[in-house]
Amino acid sequence: MLDVCLMGCGGSIPKPDRWLTSALFRYGGECVVIDCGEGTQLAMKEAGFVAGKVALILLTHFHADHVSGLPGLLLSIANEGRVDPVVIAGPKGTSRIVSSLCVIAQGLPFQIYIYEFPNGGGELPKEYLPVNTNSSCSARITAYPGRHSMPCLGYRISLPRGGKFDPARAKAQNIPVKLWSRLQKGETVDEDGVTYTPDMVLGAPRRGIDVSYVTDTRPTDVIVEAVRGSDLLICEGMFGNDKAERARVSRHMTAAEAANIAAEAEVGTLWLTHYSPSMPDPKEAEAEAKLIFPETEAGYDGKHILMQFED
Amino acid sequence: MLDVCLMGCGGSIPKPDRWLTSALFRYGGECVVIDCGEGTQLAMKEAGFVAGKVALILLTHFHADHVSGLPGLLLSIANEGRVDPVVIAGPKGTSRIVSSLCVIAQGLPFQIYIYEFPNGGGELPKEYLPVNTNSSCSARITAYPGRHSMPCLGYRISLPRGGKFDPARAKAQNIPVKLWSRLQKGETVDEDGVTYTPDMVLGAPRRGIDVSYVTDTRPTDVIVEAVRGSDLLICEGMFGNDKAERARVSRHMTAAEAANIAAEAEVGTLWLTHYSPSMPDPKEAEAEAKLIFPETEAGYDGKHILMQFED
Repeated sequence: MLDVCLMGCGGSIPKPDRWLTSALFRYGGECVVIDCGEGTQLAMKEAGFVAGKVALILLTHFHADHVSGLPGLLLSIANEGRVDPVVIAGPKGTSRIVSSLCVIAQGLPFQIYIYEFPNGGGELPKEYLPVNTNSSCSARITAYPGRHSMPCLGYRISLPRGGKFDPARAKAQNIPVKLWSRLQKGETVDEDGVTYTPDMVLGAPRRGIDVSYVTDTRPTDVIVEAVRGSDLLICEGMFGNDKAERARVSRHMTAAEAANIAAEAEVGTLWLTHYSPSMPDPKEAEAEAKLIFPETEAGYDGKHILMQFED
Repeated sequence: MLDVCLMGCGGSIPKPDRWLTSALFRYGGECVVIDCGEGTQLAMKEAGFVAGKVALILLTHFHADHVSGLPGLLLSIANEGRVDPVVIAGPKGTSRIVSSLCVIAQGLPFQIYIYEFPNGGGELPKEYLPVNTNSSCSARITAYPGRHSMPCLGYRISLPRGGKFDPARAKAQNIPVKLWSRLQKGETVDEDGVTYTPDMVLGAPRRGIDVSYVTDTRPTDVIVEAVRGSDLLICEGMFGNDKAERARVSRHMTAAEAANIAAEAEVGTLWLTHYSPSMPDPKEAEAEAKLIFPETEAGYDGKHILMQFED
């Protein structure tokens, strides 16, 4: 089960009725936030989430509209009593940016760990994943490069799902009942000189949940492959077709370009976000995108979905 | 004429219905902003002011709730086309804080000048005052120290008013009419070997406008003297009487303590601000303050007054 909330959907500058683009993912009781421009701590509150549960902050890049809210968010996390560590991961340079901005957020009651992805992206090492998560709910987080005016990463959050537990098979193999739960969670267990492996009691892996997040980039083949098959793609649709040239020059995307990615990568649903302040009504961009990818939905502040495993 | 707007009135953390404490002063076509926590650029927009007109930003101190919105505000100023310089003035360390925070606000189209007040405060040198202001509207800005958990300054903005121009006296002294305007603005003029001084045509100086701003400090005698006789005192009233001890320990003030300053310093009106997030209704604190200083008004986001010279 994965809670997904688009906390803000604006690009460049916040507007009174549009927070800057940021998304929240909650699973296993902890939260992952992607990007935190000015106001994200407020957007989170308005969307009904608790900052104290934020275990991981992923930064796409270091333009102010994606990171200026970091000191406030960290102070808000502290204010809600968190003492467990918070991981901040992003492109190369994350450490320098975080330490610069945190000159006004000293004395936090939790440890901050920084992880800088290599330029080509890659998988977030397991030790940086939220720690309170139980293993049946462990995620996989991968980063992939975009093409913007500065190094920029997209992210994919995957919640894999193991095979179904088969108690009849476990019983037939005389596996002690007290080990069932650990095997079900994917653990290999040695007991009384016998090694028990999860495949002894589990069926084939089942379909998990995959969400991808792409912003501040031109469309690229790398992105299409990175987001392929996602159940949900959250992607910038900063401009309408009338501003395609401006999108190209500023290294952003039109909603139609986002829809092309969604169609090529065969995702389930596309949420548009990161609207230009000059776009009063994202529904127009949505209409343009729907011509290419009908399962397009214009994102809005607080747009929310609870994604559940199949069956 | 001085436009005064309390853009936000919250302390510590912004709330969905309360921006962080920040005040705007507009005179001579330019704006001075005191403090800019997260969201000030939005608070300014909501209050109907144009960020591009901000010529001077005064920082009281470097706690995040007073400065975290600086990069966003600067980008907003840039976004509105300003190319004239912006001055940022504050306590010692302002330069380091600004350069740290501006790691995410590079390439601004205007020059930033920093002025650090001495620990004891003092007057902002004239060359840092807003430049577009015509001389009949020149302000005097002074800083004075508070007593907080880090060095903190209060500010007084004074709009002095020269004596009334007396055309009959000017005529009687055969002063060329083309010089009248410059003399009226306080300029001394040499013309055809004769020196003309403003006192030749002006009456005694008249009452100006004085506004003082005090936050994040315990009450002190220094503050009472610094704000003495102000027409308006904007002062923190972070807590009600029930939290007087908390105010003392955190080096803040209750509304009643603010009222004591207002009464002792014989100011005109007191606006309360910088409410604790734990204070749902500032009207209660206002009532406590009114018992001491009846001309107390609870501040709120967007509270605004147009202060005009007498007569």
